[in-house]
Amino acid sequence: MPTSEQNEFSRGSVGVVQTQVVRFDSFTLEGGETITPLEIAYETYGSLNEKKDNAILVCHALSGDAHAAGFHEGDKRPGWWDFYVGPGKAFDTNRYFIISSNVIGGCKGSSGPLTTNAKTGKPFQSTFPFVSIGDMVNAQEKLISFFGIHKLFAVAGGSMGGMQALQWSVAYPDRLKNCIVMASSSEHSAQQIAFNEVGRQAILSDPNWNQGLYTQENRPSKGLALARMMGHITYLSDEMMREKFGRKPPKGNIQSTDFAVGSYLIYQGESFVDRFDANSYIYVTKALDHFSLGTGKELTKVLAKVRCRFLVVAYTSDWLYPPYQSEEIVKSLEVNAVPVSFVELNNPAGHDSFLLPSEQQDSILRDFLSSTDEGVFL
Amino acid sequence: MPTSEQNEFSRGSVGVVQTQVVRFDSFTLEGGETITPLEIAYETYGSLNEKKDNAILVCHALSGDAHAAGFHEGDKRPGWWDFYVGPGKAFDTNRYFIISSNVIGGCKGSSGPLTTNAKTGKPFQSTFPFVSIGDMVNAQEKLISFFGIHKLFAVAGGSMGGMQALQWSVAYPDRLKNCIVMASSSEHSAQQIAFNEVGRQAILSDPNWNQGLYTQENRPSKGLALARMMGHITYLSDEMMREKFGRKPPKGNIQSTDFAVGSYLIYQGESFVDRFDANSYIYVTKALDHFSLGTGKELTKVLAKVRCRFLVVAYTSDWLYPPYQSEEIVKSLEVNAVPVSFVELNNPAGHDSFLLPSEQQDSILRDFLSSTDEGVFL
Repeated sequence: MPTSEQNEFSRGSVGVVQTQVVRFDSFTLEGGETITPLEIAYETYGSLNEKKDNAILVCHALSGDAHAAGFHEGDKRPGWWDFYVGPGKAFDTNRYFIISSNVIGGCKGSSGPLTTNAKTGKPFQSTFPFVSIGDMVNAQEKLISFFGIHKLFAVAGGSMGGMQALQWSVAYPDRLKNCIVMASSSEHSAQQIAFNEVGRQAILSDPNWNQGLYTQENRPSKGLALARMMGHITYLSDEMMREKFGRKPPKGNIQSTDFAVGSYLIYQGESFVDRFDANSYIYVTKALDHFSLGTGKELTKVLAKVRCRFLVVAYTSDWLYPPYQSEEIVKSLEVNAVPVSFVELNNPAGHDSFLLPSEQQDSILRDFLSSTDEGVFL
Repeated sequence: MPTSEQNEFSRGSVGVVQTQVVRFDSFTLEGGETITPLEIAYETYGSLNEKKDNAILVCHALSGDAHAAGFHEGDKRPGWWDFYVGPGKAFDTNRYFIISSNVIGGCKGSSGPLTTNAKTGKPFQSTFPFVSIGDMVNAQEKLISFFGIHKLFAVAGGSMGGMQALQWSVAYPDRLKNCIVMASSSEHSAQQIAFNEVGRQAILSDPNWNQGLYTQENRPSKGLALARMMGHITYLSDEMMREKFGRKPPKGNIQSTDFAVGSYLIYQGESFVDRFDANSYIYVTKALDHFSLGTGKELTKVLAKVRCRFLVVAYTSDWLYPPYQSEEIVKSLEVNAVPVSFVELNNPAGHDSFLLPSEQQDSILRDFLSSTDEGVFL
């Protein structure tokens, strides 16, 4: 049984949790196609109050899932945002009702390429329709409405999760009070697209790819592992990699690499293929690349409709989603006189910083939520 | 027939050139193994003077070759440093005798994995011995001595070429007067190793790899193309990619990519496999990753033995070989009271900047060489 000592930030764990699935009859995507039925995998932590005004939706990034906090039975590692979600933590489950759901197009229980197509009796795989960040958010809206929640206290997320939070503020301006956007962007730059592109090409180059109609016995695992290895470099900072690996020799696997950073990346790639689907990798990275609220004046126009308060967090060492992309969002919000707090943190961990423990980040999230809670701003 | 109008910087072209090959009986590598014979592919431009003191060795980067300037018969594109090598250019062939050779371990005519092993009658491929930057330089020393040159006027190069220039200054301190190190480093960081590592893993993952003993009909082209695509992202800057591609739709190839940057990278990958060998890619990237003159005090100690004057050039937009790596070299040279000029240029093209036309860069190279020429410094 996990204890509160398991991570340095745990003011308390939500304990053992289970992922639930809710099913809706049908769901129409922005592209016009309809999914029948729509399934959404989710977890909740804490209790929804009578007014139903204490709910916070946390949104996961590319390879995340509904399991944001606590432990699944028998697991040694907690959910992806356990540092920040739990009793007494920044997203305090003693106060808030936290909802976390798997994005559609993903492979962790929500409708996506692994879902069985009722018409064929086989998984959709690459015949699943294109999914956008807007679709992911619209599916979350169904989940929120299912709980009878009209207005979320907050939507929060990092990276792709931050894009979802942004999209919430634009698509459902009256249904969230606070929006927390971390290590994110209003649209991918050519460089960000390029990294995803090479990852997708690695999958498409795998001899098992078969146009996405591969069998579970012969999956394009080498291609997916390569995509993950490359992606993983972009999630870390130059400085952090130097500290962690430097030029040290490899651990194990000395057949195929001469350096510790090589054996680490090989391990990351190999373990990823056990927990992620190659088609989902393609769907979700395409959703990321196609998301576009614009920049500059275009973004300012789009953000004119938002009605919530914002916290935008960037990291100096994040070269994948560089701080200037966050500043772009902040500037457009300011032009629209939207209340926004912007923080650039110098955590050394690069893009992954939003997932890692940091007292400073904890305080920032906590203070932002409390100040609203106490009616300081809105 | 190419004319001097073909590029904006051409003060004149060296015209049509041919790659030559010189053969030495044998050559012992730093690792102890002997290559019999050693072949070196090279080109020269300009004339060696009677004193044999006007020779400049230019060293190529990862995917370069001996063809630095002018045109091969029938080619539309000139050599890789044609902007800077020719009559009236920075490396002025009216004054200097320019030598450019293919590195050993490469695949453009010098001994390497494509060389036939006399014992088996088949190409070495992955049985070719490990090659270091030191070995590349030692092979160049044989070439220089073959010309009867004792002391080079200069050794110059960018990226891996810069490492060779640095290695020259340390391995043969009395045999060069000037050393030009551009967009380079005294050793690879974990991040630099990581990018090469994923490239190598892409090749190793290709079903045609066959432990490096692939046939020419079934080469690991998909893996090599992926390695190149990823590498190519690191050669460009975020800013340059934004300007060049932004979020534009693809040109051609709309089957496998939705963005212009994707179709560009696919093209780069596909055209690379026509001109490069996968084994050589592995040998040369390993030489890069294993090169280590250290940093800080260790580097200062190593550089205590140099006897030449230095020009070190870095580019603000180069995030693959960030300017701090050049500064590291400069600092160590300064501690040793070695004459060094350091320039950080804000050319927007990222790591590739050293290859691209720039009036400023042209002047810097020209002035550095002339000042020595006129005895201003040494």
